Amino acid sequence: MHLSKLFIPITKSLPSEAKIKSHQLMLRTGMIKQSSAGIYSWLPLGFKVMKKIEQIVREEQNLIGAQEMLMPTIQSSEIWKESGRYDDYGEEMLRIKDRQGREMLYGPTNEELVTDIFRSSIKSYKSLPQLLYHIQWKFRDEIRPRFGVMRCKEFYMKDAYSFDLSDEDAKKSYNKMFYSYLKTFERLGLKAIPMAADTGPIGGDLSHEFVILAETGESQIYADKEIFEIDINKYSYKDESLKKMREDFSNIYAATDEKFNEDKFNKIVKKENQVKTKGIEVGHIFYFGDKYSKPMNCLIDDKSGKKISVKMGSYGIGVSRLVGATIEANYNNDVMKWPKSISPFEVVIIPSLSKNNKENFEKSEKIYKELKKQNIDVLLDDVDENMSNKFKKHDLIGVPYQIIIGSKSGNDKFEFKELNEKSEVLSLDQIKTKLKT
Amino acid sequence: MHLSKLFIPITKSLPSEAKIKSHQLMLRTGMIKQSSAGIYSWLPLGFKVMKKIEQIVREEQNLIGAQEMLMPTIQSSEIWKESGRYDDYGEEMLRIKDRQGREMLYGPTNEELVTDIFRSSIKSYKSLPQLLYHIQWKFRDEIRPRFGVMRCKEFYMKDAYSFDLSDEDAKKSYNKMFYSYLKTFERLGLKAIPMAADTGPIGGDLSHEFVILAETGESQIYADKEIFEIDINKYSYKDESLKKMREDFSNIYAATDEKFNEDKFNKIVKKENQVKTKGIEVGHIFYFGDKYSKPMNCLIDDKSGKKISVKMGSYGIGVSRLVGATIEANYNNDVMKWPKSISPFEVVIIPSLSKNNKENFEKSEKIYKELKKQNIDVLLDDVDENMSNKFKKHDLIGVPYQIIIGSKSGNDKFEFKELNEKSEVLSLDQIKTKLKT
Repeated sequence: MHLSKLFIPITKSLPSEAKIKSHQLMLRTGMIKQSSAGIYSWLPLGFKVMKKIEQIVREEQNLIGAQEMLMPTIQSSEIWKESGRYDDYGEEMLRIKDRQGREMLYGPTNEELVTDIFRSSIKSYKSLPQLLYHIQWKFRDEIRPRFGVMRCKEFYMKDAYSFDLSDEDAKKSYNKMFYSYLKTFERLGLKAIPMAADTGPIGGDLSHEFVILAETGESQIYADKEIFEIDINKYSYKDESLKKMREDFSNIYAATDEKFNEDKFNKIVKKENQVKTKGIEVGHIFYFGDKYSKPMNCLIDDKSGKKISVKMGSYGIGVSRLVGATIEANYNNDVMKWPKSISPFEVVIIPSLSKNNKENFEKSEKIYKELKKQNIDVLLDDVDENMSNKFKKHDLIGVPYQIIIGSKSGNDKFEFKELNEKSEVLSLDQIKTKLKT
Repeated sequence: MHLSKLFIPITKSLPSEAKIKSHQLMLRTGMIKQSSAGIYSWLPLGFKVMKKIEQIVREEQNLIGAQEMLMPTIQSSEIWKESGRYDDYGEEMLRIKDRQGREMLYGPTNEELVTDIFRSSIKSYKSLPQLLYHIQWKFRDEIRPRFGVMRCKEFYMKDAYSFDLSDEDAKKSYNKMFYSYLKTFERLGLKAIPMAADTGPIGGDLSHEFVILAETGESQIYADKEIFEIDINKYSYKDESLKKMREDFSNIYAATDEKFNEDKFNKIVKKENQVKTKGIEVGHIFYFGDKYSKPMNCLIDDKSGKKISVKMGSYGIGVSRLVGATIEANYNNDVMKWPKSISPFEVVIIPSLSKNNKENFEKSEKIYKELKKQNIDVLLDDVDENMSNKFKKHDLIGVPYQIIIGSKSGNDKFEFKELNEKSEVLSLDQIKTKLKT
């Protein structure tokens, strides 16, 4: 892609309500545009990052055997009356009357709808366990939307649902998802800590939040720093290994303010290990047994032919929120550096351009075509602007690798730079090798 | 994927309102489930087909340089008041009041929103032309939703928008999109005919519908049969070639009932060439110049520095509708056969299973693993059911190739069948070659 063709409205003036780094950066680099309070359009640069995050989330869900489907955004109120949540859910639920006066709503979550699908489809323990997920827009009518895509009204979420015969089986599903989440965040270049959490309006008695550390986070975090050192790659997808993983995490103190107990914290965590900081919730998982299946009459024949309520859990990752959260975790000193796995481009070519000399431009085009042939997703900054401005701009756009075509480049050697690192002068083959690893 | 694990609630009883083939088939094979009137969930089988269609649409949009973005589903009424369509648009628009009493709506289309994004981003002719698109859920509050996903309330649509400096340039964008649509439908295995159309609530004076022939279609079609024989692959992406293409199509009579003129039809189309049939609209493109940019004050500096209203067009493809339309075009005599490009699986292994003999099952598993290694997306029917039922079921699921492990299979030769064709006995290598071509 040539930067001059990319629809990327870079702006210097920021609205006063953009208070946190991710909100500011996303507006400045034209990743998003607000269309009305708390509702955003995703412009090409932001859209590309979000889609890459979505794809990683999807792949990790598929790896544990979850099946993708898609539920609609608009739901009937009837199933919410069955579960009893229609009245409980406050004004954050966007309630709608259709032209025939029927009460509808824009789904803030999908426990009811997936239970309705399940009860009409699956009747026997033989078809269990089942894991279903979808990645769909949700709506929450926030009274005070803020922090850009971090707390907005219309947001993109992956929500998964597990169906099991017994509590014991259900916990295996829970552990699988727990592990899948840690793997997902690792691939996104984020260190996410699972913390025991309250269950809120979803319900149930077992729940974990996944939190990444960031000063701008809304959650207060108290943890033993040892929890950051657990290497998840020592576990495997086997039930026993995942049980061990859950125990290992449970044995180290970590809590958000909701669950925080100061006496306990001081008693079991050594002073020098105590971490008190802020964090951003990027995922939340729940086990709630028959909270929905019972009132909604979602029954399964067990081995003896007895009808029992299926045991359910739900598992959410905020896909659009993760774009902002990744920025909060990676944007420092006016330099944004995207993790390789979700960067909008793999590398950017930055030529020093002048009207009288086309040499650098032609060199850039040649490298561009060469990299494209190798299926490398490359951005070429063909905008007529001085190099100092270009560098400032690319510090914000955050493509992690740069090929600079200027004074240091020879005929077949080019300046290659990883953001925040020193530059080297390399041949195109050496650059390709660097990019491929 | 093993069929016993796939969430595919196959049903034999059909609701009385399922009157057309695609609606019946999609319910019978568990591709969709209605959640409320005219609103559907997409279960894994249907979801997979829809995603494949979406990906082909996306690739063809990218090929003409259109950039993907994503606008939200919920819009403010303000921009619709600016364009003047808020009152014009009838009760099909789902109108919503948020908790603060603001008038919002669920977007049925996005001309206003994209114009709003454009006017705040692009100021100079130097940045033109621009082509932007998104693939997003839309809502149309149909009074009488019917025909399953063909005329439902919540539907998935690709809509693109072009921005040009002059009418002349804009027509080049129009022609590109026209060509892109023909290529898209060709890849989906559909023969779509472009027909001059009325512009309806979108507006403008140039418009084409893309229609595929199907008896269950809602549009009456009148055409010279020569139009079906135009080979689009003789044209290229160059402006001149695309102009010629448009002329070639315009020179042959084709019209829906809206534009039909019986005298003209009889005068210019030879009796033996006259086709009168029904069709399904799968795409619609519009050129409307400054219909939105003028009232919404979306201005561009032209070369002389004069501010002029940008010239716009819009271009829609019904992605979810195409799932149904493809079924209407391909489902005959109780056999559905998906085009290879969008089939939910590439091939299905159908073993004859018996409790006392595990040989066929083991053979199937071996072939399954072998094909998986080759990245072939294979379904294994491991359900304990007699072969006659299995064949009936797979006639509906519609995977185009079958490997049958029964009496005709030897140790390393297997029965291989393309739906609606004779079967052959082939080695696994021969089968792989067939599947790869």
